[in-house]
Amino acid sequence: MFEAQLEKASTLKKIIDSIKDLINEAPFDCSENAICLQAMDSSHVALVSLKLSIELFEAYRCDRTVSLGLNLTNVAKALKCANNDDVCILRYTDHDQDNVTFAFHDTGKTKTQEITIKLMDIDNEHLGIPDQKYAATIEMSSSEFAKTCRDISQFTDSVTIAAVKGGITFSGKGDTGSNIVTYNGETDAENTDALITFEINENVTSTFSIKYMLMFAKAAGLSERVRLSLSEGVPVVVEFKINEDAGYLRYYLAPKIDEDADMD
Amino acid sequence: MFEAQLEKASTLKKIIDSIKDLINEAPFDCSENAICLQAMDSSHVALVSLKLSIELFEAYRCDRTVSLGLNLTNVAKALKCANNDDVCILRYTDHDQDNVTFAFHDTGKTKTQEITIKLMDIDNEHLGIPDQKYAATIEMSSSEFAKTCRDISQFTDSVTIAAVKGGITFSGKGDTGSNIVTYNGETDAENTDALITFEINENVTSTFSIKYMLMFAKAAGLSERVRLSLSEGVPVVVEFKINEDAGYLRYYLAPKIDEDADMD
Amino acid sequence: MFEAQLEKASTLKKIIDSIKDLINEAPFDCSENAICLQAMDSSHVALVSLKLSIELFEAYRCDRTVSLGLNLTNVAKALKCANNDDVCILRYTDHDQDNVTFAFHDTGKTKTQEITIKLMDIDNEHLGIPDQKYAATIEMSSSEFAKTCRDISQFTDSVTIAAVKGGITFSGKGDTGSNIVTYNGETDAENTDALITFEINENVTSTFSIKYMLMFAKAAGLSERVRLSLSEGVPVVVEFKINEDAGYLRYYLAPKIDEDADMD
Repeated sequence: MFEAQLEKASTLKKIIDSIKDLINEAPFDCSENAICLQAMDSSHVALVSLKLSIELFEAYRCDRTVSLGLNLTNVAKALKCANNDDVCILRYTDHDQDNVTFAFHDTGKTKTQEITIKLMDIDNEHLGIPDQKYAATIEMSSSEFAKTCRDISQFTDSVTIAAVKGGITFSGKGDTGSNIVTYNGETDAENTDALITFEINENVTSTFSIKYMLMFAKAAGLSERVRLSLSEGVPVVVEFKINEDAGYLRYYLAPKIDEDADMD
Repeated sequence: MFEAQLEKASTLKKIIDSIKDLINEAPFDCSENAICLQAMDSSHVALVSLKLSIELFEAYRCDRTVSLGLNLTNVAKALKCANNDDVCILRYTDHDQDNVTFAFHDTGKTKTQEITIKLMDIDNEHLGIPDQKYAATIEMSSSEFAKTCRDISQFTDSVTIAAVKGGITFSGKGDTGSNIVTYNGETDAENTDALITFEINENVTSTFSIKYMLMFAKAAGLSERVRLSLSEGVPVVVEFKINEDAGYLRYYLAPKIDEDADMD
Repeated sequence: MFEAQLEKASTLKKIIDSIKDLINEAPFDCSENAICLQAMDSSHVALVSLKLSIELFEAYRCDRTVSLGLNLTNVAKALKCANNDDVCILRYTDHDQDNVTFAFHDTGKTKTQEITIKLMDIDNEHLGIPDQKYAATIEMSSSEFAKTCRDISQFTDSVTIAAVKGGITFSGKGDTGSNIVTYNGETDAENTDALITFEINENVTSTFSIKYMLMFAKAAGLSERVRLSLSEGVPVVVEFKINEDAGYLRYYLAPKIDEDADMD
């Protein structure tokens, strides 16, 4: 048996809404300490890695490791039925191995809702992501990150992020116009009120697909801050923490190779 | 001459918006004590019955019984022109028998708006609806009713309502998932703050088209509470009261016959 | 060099949003005292005339008269990137005569955004608009003007404005219904709280395309009041002042000739 209880359904709702446009189906790997999901997006360009630790839950019971293959559109439909303040219980039992149940209770306990969703067989090729030291890390307001991606997307489909000592720029150039956003932020990474903070060990400039950045930015509702980790020639990590350190949602995206061609 | 004055145009606006997607054209039967409308929806599946008693109006004058055939899309257009707080006067005079006028006045009396709409000939076959004792009546928050219908519609196009001693369930089952909403409400029908109250003389389980329930639920703006009256094998009555007992909007919908086939 | 600085980008945003659906491309004529724009809409029916005087700006420098041909869709895209409270600087330099720059600064100065847009060659045929004494002027709440145009458009595509001593009417008649809006406003043109004020030297009745009136009404966000100036047989002027007398946005529209045919 696997059962995990969240205080508020809204947490799970925001997570699923942040990944359902990237991923159709994915395995939720439930183990003793956490629920993990790792999947490439449908075009095999970006990687999503989600971890929900046991600390995130009010109650958690996992008798044995189990991988629940779910269609995320159906999960999103189920969560749409929950009120944001409803308690949310995810349940899988050995005597019904074809389905998973989402149960929602209102706080007044007058009403319960049980939604049952069919499980799917999903090939679960877990990629090892090496821990890495990055040349630059940027931590910024996640709504500002979303806005800047939208602003750059007005004129082009690529965004170039340059992290150099002294400042960060997001820029893009299209046929009808160009846009350069410059941040002269603080370098005190502990200041979580700052619009942006950054730490640069080495200058780095990389160009990414704006379409994917906009899809990652949908997770802005999940966390006030987003962290970008960059090194020349390797995928950027766009990370949203979930309830402090009780989990994370990470997106990985490789830089565009023909960066110079795109930018001039 | 017929003339009826409402304190706020918003009341009539909400009523028309609640029925205009079901009914294209309908006769408004104006008599000494009330305006009544009764019509089948365009697919002849549901019946709408509306009564606006004289108490609902600030002023009311009806020299002789008259039936005003109106296209509801045009009436909705007229009411869209009113501000919610405008006084609304419906007027029909013997010297212009082709038209009806909706007049709106703002409270400051700087502005008046007179909208004239052509009348239509409509066959007025008034169905007698027998007064009936129902096996179960459910009274619930109308926004909760609307939400539960939407939630069930995520997975299927039929909703099964089961009223059994001890609780009410709304449920539906589709190819990708199923949903069961259970209410353990109070049985004190006088508690109008409760999410749901019910009175069950006999257990009853019936299945209905969710599409129609969603259309009825549009009247949730008209009244805080909705009352469902159920008996095995007869149409459900979905009733919204208008300003306490100054009128009502009732929808009648026959249950689906192939209920078991649908549910499994 | 030309450089003009606005305290809030929102002012320019509202202006461009008010004209971009009428005009694709237009020359912004920048001179010592003002930025002016004058252009026919794409169907050559309405004329737009915009003036932004030097008083509107926090800083203004114009070394020599210059005409900046701009695609308004691109300008709207650029302004969409500004926060409403951002400082907005419009800049054109002699060493880059192909482009114009919109620079936005947040008040905290952490962030700057520079958007560069390509200039276009636009034939600049400046029409002389004769100063004229009008038979009637109406000044009214601009949101009321927008609402009344929308209300009339429910039933027809023409609006007839009648300014006669004692009152103003906006009316329209279509196949399914007709609408007459009557204002018994004050005649004290100084009362800017009044829903409507008017001054009538001579009675005038003219009919206009409602489609264009609705496009003009988009400027309601720019100014609380709109002034309509009418004379028989000449174009109506629909004027929105910008920051009192620091500028204006004027629309000119010729009356429909076959007015009687339309109205009956």
